[in-house]
Amino acid sequence: MKRVAIVGCGVVGSSWALVFARAGHEVAVYDASPGSVRQALAFVRESLESLPPDGGGSAEDIDVVCARLKPATSLEEALAGADYIQESAPERLEVKRELYPQLDAIAPPHVILASSTSGLPASSFTDQLRHRERCLVVHPINPPHLIPLVELVPAPWTDAGVVNEAAKLMQSLGQSPIRLNREINGFVVNRLQSALLGEAFRLVEDGLCSAADVDKAVSDGLGLRWFFMGPFETIDLNAQNGVAEYCRNLGPMYYGLAREQADPREWNAALVQDVEQQRRRLTPADGLPARRLWRDRCLSALVAAKRRVLNDRPN
Amino acid sequence: MKRVAIVGCGVVGSSWALVFARAGHEVAVYDASPGSVRQALAFVRESLESLPPDGGGSAEDIDVVCARLKPATSLEEALAGADYIQESAPERLEVKRELYPQLDAIAPPHVILASSTSGLPASSFTDQLRHRERCLVVHPINPPHLIPLVELVPAPWTDAGVVNEAAKLMQSLGQSPIRLNREINGFVVNRLQSALLGEAFRLVEDGLCSAADVDKAVSDGLGLRWFFMGPFETIDLNAQNGVAEYCRNLGPMYYGLAREQADPREWNAALVQDVEQQRRRLTPADGLPARRLWRDRCLSALVAAKRRVLNDRPN
Repeated sequence: MKRVAIVGCGVVGSSWALVFARAGHEVAVYDASPGSVRQALAFVRESLESLPPDGGGSAEDIDVVCARLKPATSLEEALAGADYIQESAPERLEVKRELYPQLDAIAPPHVILASSTSGLPASSFTDQLRHRERCLVVHPINPPHLIPLVELVPAPWTDAGVVNEAAKLMQSLGQSPIRLNREINGFVVNRLQSALLGEAFRLVEDGLCSAADVDKAVSDGLGLRWFFMGPFETIDLNAQNGVAEYCRNLGPMYYGLAREQADPREWNAALVQDVEQQRRRLTPADGLPARRLWRDRCLSALVAAKRRVLNDRPN
Repeated sequence: MKRVAIVGCGVVGSSWALVFARAGHEVAVYDASPGSVRQALAFVRESLESLPPDGGGSAEDIDVVCARLKPATSLEEALAGADYIQESAPERLEVKRELYPQLDAIAPPHVILASSTSGLPASSFTDQLRHRERCLVVHPINPPHLIPLVELVPAPWTDAGVVNEAAKLMQSLGQSPIRLNREINGFVVNRLQSALLGEAFRLVEDGLCSAADVDKAVSDGLGLRWFFMGPFETIDLNAQNGVAEYCRNLGPMYYGLAREQADPREWNAALVQDVEQQRRRLTPADGLPARRLWRDRCLSALVAAKRRVLNDRPN
């Protein structure tokens, strides 16, 4: 059992609180706004009540899990005795640059300072710290209690042992950590998403097909294998002798496509309006909240199903 | 019940034979090599025996389904009385250019000639036909008995009614058709895959992370939502008021990434060798056939699980 401090508990921090508490850790929850702390505690309870045990809920007594959450009214109180700090403050550089010197001053030097930032490299807000070697980005895909992937991104001065320790902790929580060797815009996940979205918008803008048909191409096609294998294993199994053969056969075709796609485009107002209108015909604006609940229920049930299928079928 | 002719029954044609037969159609199976026809019939039986009923197998008596397959020893025999022809001959232009005039001459003009080609536009091998308006590409994601997506790609002269009819037929089979408005290299699926693979190889080539971590970023992260929503619905639900708000907030970030990614690269020998070696450490060459069986079992179980989850939770 560790003592974890959640600093900033909006949507991301609340989900982190659930992840740590259901794994048995004691979790101090702090936010500059006390109302956010109350909301975070309520969120954890509601999630545990609504999700199946193997789909992000908990097989334990819900009260036991919730009792691990300790609301804190100051940064000092939140960090007292903490072994690990997961910062999920607002995504603005000036906020982080004001917050980190405080975290660095309060927490003893062995405590890891992990940021949930999706876009700011750790080097941009930890450069001046006395113990900057214990800082890194631990970026979840939202919400982390349903989606296991976490990106570990060190700053140039991050200690390698700190990355190892963060990876071990994430694994022990049931998360799935990947390691970047250095900082890069968008990290890995948003770069991959950018590539796919860029082509998705291009196809719609050029009148090739509807946005709904792009979605189908993924959700009834490519996404079925990506759900449990990822793109490299997918192509590795698609040629008799593996990925090198695949690249020999299809590399020239893909290079041709890549040249046609080397055409970065802004998502202009007319295009965005077109996609927005197409989406609103499928899910009207007032149906979005219900559709998000549907998404989370599906996600939780499907991730649980995946766990069962993969555990049943080792190899 | 329709009469369908499968012309060319390698891996793709065999899977098509299963798709049509389990949906209740009578299926003539023809290949220039008689051995391939025997293998196709065996493949259908083995697949029905090994897959669960809702995972691509059949709840009906397997003998009943198999009895719908009629091996044919000539093109004339295969096409006799056929309402729809699914051509899955080898992926070489000269093969198709020799075959289509024969199909066009034998089949009455109302019969749809659909090609499974993944890369050749229908215009490249139907231009000279007398009844070219009944030709189109009906491109499956392999194997179609496990993956529902089908791309319908008309040539400039394809009759709109033919596309509608093919779409209806595919839907009645339980496949998921999308419609392209015109021909384009790679159609939709391979263009989307190209975009993602391009960035995946770029990240590995630039030393950002391992191939396995790219796979995890998708299979434990992005791919979880893409499995049932696709990329547009994913971002639509990721902003309070929908996709237009998402683009307003994040469009500039994605445009910045798109410019960094507008760098088409050939997958050079050293890079391919690196990825091949990384993959072989995870799945040795002699383990590939077993891993493919694992993939198909997982795919079938997960697609069945998805069907149950989405049917349980309408909205």
